[in-house]
Amino acid sequence: NYFFQYLSFIVWTVALAFCSSVIIKKLCYAAAGSGIPDLKSIFSGFWNSSVVQPRVLIWKVLGLLFSYGSGLSIGKEGPYIHISAILANTLLNIKPFKNIATNETQRSQMLASCCALGVAATFGSPIGGVLFSIEVTGTYYLIQNYWRAFFTATVGAVGIKILLSTPSNDLLESYRTSFESLNLATVQLLAFIITGILCGLLASLFIYMYSKIYTWKKHNQDFIKKITPYGEVIIVAAVTAVITFPLKFLRLDHASAVHTMFTAHDGVNTEELKVWTDSMPFNNSILLACFLYILVKLVLTAVSVTLPVPYGIYIPLFAIGAAVGRFVGESMKLIFPHMKDIYPTGYAVVGAAALCGGATRTVSSAVIILELTNDMTFLVPVLLGVVLSCGIGNLLNHSIYDCFLRNKGLPYLPFVKIKSDSLVAKDVMKREFRYVTRKTTLLRIQSVLDNVLDYAIPIVESDDNLFLIGTISRTTLEEVISYHERLHSYSLKSPIEGEEDGSGNTIITINSQNHNYYDNNDNDNSLLLQEESSQIEMNLIPKSESIDQLDSNQQTQSQLQNGSTDHQDINNNNNSGDIRSSLSLNNEIIIDIVHMELQNPWVVIDTSPIHIVESMPVRKIIFMFMMLGGNVLFVTNKGQLVGIINKTDIVQKGYLHHK
Amino acid sequence: NYFFQYLSFIVWTVALAFCSSVIIKKLCYAAAGSGIPDLKSIFSGFWNSSVVQPRVLIWKVLGLLFSYGSGLSIGKEGPYIHISAILANTLLNIKPFKNIATNETQRSQMLASCCALGVAATFGSPIGGVLFSIEVTGTYYLIQNYWRAFFTATVGAVGIKILLSTPSNDLLESYRTSFESLNLATVQLLAFIITGILCGLLASLFIYMYSKIYTWKKHNQDFIKKITPYGEVIIVAAVTAVITFPLKFLRLDHASAVHTMFTAHDGVNTEELKVWTDSMPFNNSILLACFLYILVKLVLTAVSVTLPVPYGIYIPLFAIGAAVGRFVGESMKLIFPHMKDIYPTGYAVVGAAALCGGATRTVSSAVIILELTNDMTFLVPVLLGVVLSCGIGNLLNHSIYDCFLRNKGLPYLPFVKIKSDSLVAKDVMKREFRYVTRKTTLLRIQSVLDNVLDYAIPIVESDDNLFLIGTISRTTLEEVISYHERLHSYSLKSPIEGEEDGSGNTIITINSQNHNYYDNNDNDNSLLLQEESSQIEMNLIPKSESIDQLDSNQQTQSQLQNGSTDHQDINNNNNSGDIRSSLSLNNEIIIDIVHMELQNPWVVIDTSPIHIVESMPVRKIIFMFMMLGGNVLFVTNKGQLVGIINKTDIVQKGYLHHK
Repeated sequence: NYFFQYLSFIVWTVALAFCSSVIIKKLCYAAAGSGIPDLKSIFSGFWNSSVVQPRVLIWKVLGLLFSYGSGLSIGKEGPYIHISAILANTLLNIKPFKNIATNETQRSQMLASCCALGVAATFGSPIGGVLFSIEVTGTYYLIQNYWRAFFTATVGAVGIKILLSTPSNDLLESYRTSFESLNLATVQLLAFIITGILCGLLASLFIYMYSKIYTWKKHNQDFIKKITPYGEVIIVAAVTAVITFPLKFLRLDHASAVHTMFTAHDGVNTEELKVWTDSMPFNNSILLACFLYILVKLVLTAVSVTLPVPYGIYIPLFAIGAAVGRFVGESMKLIFPHMKDIYPTGYAVVGAAALCGGATRTVSSAVIILELTNDMTFLVPVLLGVVLSCGIGNLLNHSIYDCFLRNKGLPYLPFVKIKSDSLVAKDVMKREFRYVTRKTTLLRIQSVLDNVLDYAIPIVESDDNLFLIGTISRTTLEEVISYHERLHSYSLKSPIEGEEDGSGNTIITINSQNHNYYDNNDNDNSLLLQEESSQIEMNLIPKSESIDQLDSNQQTQSQLQNGSTDHQDINNNNNSGDIRSSLSLNNEIIIDIVHMELQNPWVVIDTSPIHIVESMPVRKIIFMFMMLGGNVLFVTNKGQLVGIINKTDIVQKGYLHHK
Repeated sequence: NYFFQYLSFIVWTVALAFCSSVIIKKLCYAAAGSGIPDLKSIFSGFWNSSVVQPRVLIWKVLGLLFSYGSGLSIGKEGPYIHISAILANTLLNIKPFKNIATNETQRSQMLASCCALGVAATFGSPIGGVLFSIEVTGTYYLIQNYWRAFFTATVGAVGIKILLSTPSNDLLESYRTSFESLNLATVQLLAFIITGILCGLLASLFIYMYSKIYTWKKHNQDFIKKITPYGEVIIVAAVTAVITFPLKFLRLDHASAVHTMFTAHDGVNTEELKVWTDSMPFNNSILLACFLYILVKLVLTAVSVTLPVPYGIYIPLFAIGAAVGRFVGESMKLIFPHMKDIYPTGYAVVGAAALCGGATRTVSSAVIILELTNDMTFLVPVLLGVVLSCGIGNLLNHSIYDCFLRNKGLPYLPFVKIKSDSLVAKDVMKREFRYVTRKTTLLRIQSVLDNVLDYAIPIVESDDNLFLIGTISRTTLEEVISYHERLHSYSLKSPIEGEEDGSGNTIITINSQNHNYYDNNDNDNSLLLQEESSQIEMNLIPKSESIDQLDSNQQTQSQLQNGSTDHQDINNNNNSGDIRSSLSLNNEIIIDIVHMELQNPWVVIDTSPIHIVESMPVRKIIFMFMMLGGNVLFVTNKGQLVGIINKTDIVQKGYLHHK
């Protein structure tokens, strides 16, 4: 019977973990892992829509159900935050919210607020939620966003409170503690300091183990894959099941383990404590049980978070930390048997916060645990433990999220370190770049649009001097093209005559009286177009003008006559018309973008892009990207555009290496 | 007897307030007010050492003792934060810490951390302290400083805990609450929302009143001063005493008032409650008492914070907010007499947090109150109240600290609003500016140093083209001068001969063999100087070279001969020597700063200052100042320096007006 139970436990664990892995590998790889590193990358300015698509939500939820349910030593906080972000992004694509977030900054802010909500809802800790999401995702934080994030988190917390309003239904009840007052002016202060330092060291060890396992797997990928594509998941799940089944407390879910550590002591919840001690040989066997729990869980968690399944790391670390704290607390009780107010349960709270704080490098872990336990008595020890643990951790290695981020190869600015301090803009800039000249043709604009992915496209004075005038957005350039195409296809229907305006510019006047292109019903519409076409007059300067401004009048005049003849030819030929040929004609016309801006409010040129000099160190460039946002910096030499530095390039190219 | 008490109460109040006012007006005006606005200005990049000098500390403490003790309706949190900052700054000037904070950024960070400590110590709320100081002083916050601030605050909290370790000694005990669990899914949720909105409105009203009183006083300054220089203080103190004496609960200190509001209800602390109700006519007179308290205190506080005394506003608002909350709670009890878990004391907690949050516009007020009451039960209602109150407040006017800031005329970037959106760099830049040319004389450097206050001084290619090469710090320029003076006073002792080096530059070789200037004991020293003098060879390029490079050899040669003759003349004349004349000679020598940088590691040129174009909108310039720090931006046109924009100028000049 025991054997049968054992076997079925293993089978279930393996089967569920396998399902989760299949979902990730076959259906949606973006749903793998914690999700926090991906969001961190997004918040640092590298938008990646594939991470926040609705389909990721579905597979993440399903995958998490299987992986969390399987009994692997993983948590769910990271995925919850990811799910919140996807929900927010999905909402932002729906009608009433679509206008809110047209720019990426606002969209990111909205996602960030919802991440706070994710934590707030997981732990019922709105304040900790906001602080955690700030610390975990950002480099700096605008105070003006504080209120928004807190508002979102409060709404979430109110929602949770109402949903869980009957105490029997309170999922978070198991974390509640109620301590008597605590006197810090004793040897206990030292014990709390030791707990903090110990947790910091263990957190660093955990991160070190994870990194080693990850690297080992990477180097032996072929060997692992040879056995079976899902070999690693099956093996890890099987080992987890084999190890955790015999000792009952090892296969407790994390919330139960934490509940025991936080609340069960002499006389209270002794039943729960028995689960831990009964299988142990000694009298004070809680010490041994805690030790075993820490050892086994730390290794299993480090292995599990290298698997291709959705996972979180917060709650397992929480449970391990509670065991660490309990271990210190029980030791204190043994060493000072006659001291009055030693609460090993209180040490468990400190340890849980400190280990999480140490691994995630967030001070807000302290706030989360205070909100979660609904008890302020251990405020100072908890904060002390977390601050020390974070500090020790920072001396030794990077946070676990930063390791995830590096291993996933996600772009993240603050995380890169420059290979050499002497590296300057000149060394990293793209010397070959596309630009639009002030006076250009539709054909050239189209060619630039086809070849450039950047959002902001530089406008220079001329091909010869390359003086940077400003930048224009892709969208505006696309609108410029469609505007001219529309204008031209309209002009096909109407007689065109060349004339000279007062300023000496030769212009094409489109006779806007003959609006036979439109039905008579469309009067408003055509009036609008009349205005548009008279507005555009100034902007349609024939190409010849730029070649020879002084002597171009007759030439232009004749060219225009040719033009209008062509037009009318086409006009006669078509109604279904060969638009291509008319377009190619249109492409010959020179457009002065600066003129267009003066006369069309929808043509917006940013005339003050940030120039940097060739000698600017890359360190400073990264700082500017971080603080000012934006994706592109323009390198100029005496006003002349000599290179472009793209944020993505700077991260992806070999100029930099991860710390 | 009653009359005598009344009179002595008035006399005491007036006398103490008068003393405080004398301290401020006669001895140290920088100690006036809250201190938070001054720090806010410092943290936004406008260093003002007069605010953080040790003498301010002494007068602030003394002044606060008198003003707080007098019974004026003021608090002490702001001054505590200010005192912490001064302590930090004083420590930073002492030996072991002097090196830590050589640059202003680090110094500001250190001060900011200590501000967190100030709040942490006042309220025993380390987490709230950190968050409050972040919100109140910053525009944005670097996450990397989170840990430092929390570490400082934790140390402070541990200190406070140990100092107050015996419960009878616990100054914060009076704020402790212990509520039963709360069900939010009832009409109470609505009541909490109403409390939040009401507090937001009252907070805005308070700020409005303060502004009106301040403006009125400003316009009638002459009239007020005519009566007596301390007239306003005496009148306000007298009125405060006259109003608050008859109703005993009005002259309670704020902590006692809060204690009653937070804890006294049916059966508990009824004695304290009687102080409030006994002087009232009706049965449910607590409602009337609260109403009176709110009315009187709100007006008195708004008047008191216009006085020239040290004051805080947090604790009075805390007490008023508690009364507002209590008022709502007691009303709820009247309206729903049969509902079970209505705690008017809980409403008082929500109200206190919400009113403070509304006036200071900080969400962290919620955290402070949760830590202060040591009770998490009302977490969600408190947060809800604060978030709503802040939101309502932000819709109506600016935070009270921003009003202080504006009235004090302190420079603060994020607070200014540009008069016109079309204002660009060209309109605000200084067209007349001092600069150093690449090849310059000591005389010119000295003249620039005498006339410019900026830290970073631009270096341009030449007077003709003004091409911006980089910037150099004042300190470095001063060192360059003293270096050359030292070199010259040394060269006075040694024969000088002109010769031509390989690169065609005419240089002065200082014969470093003859070091008769030094004792024989100083061998090491003189060797050092030998190296220095041979290093400097390249940098001493005679002036003539810059005038005519091609045809200058003979001219230079002759000039050099003249020069060396002069040198030897002086050399012959002196030992106590007329240094002035030798300096004036030295001033003629042309120094190539770029050359100097290449050869002397201590000459640092920032070759990548941030260029901006003339068409950059002022809005964007302010954003750059805010995010990138620094004090100066250089406006260039095709590489040519055309203007300088100074952060201080932009705030002080009329281009901008406060919102």
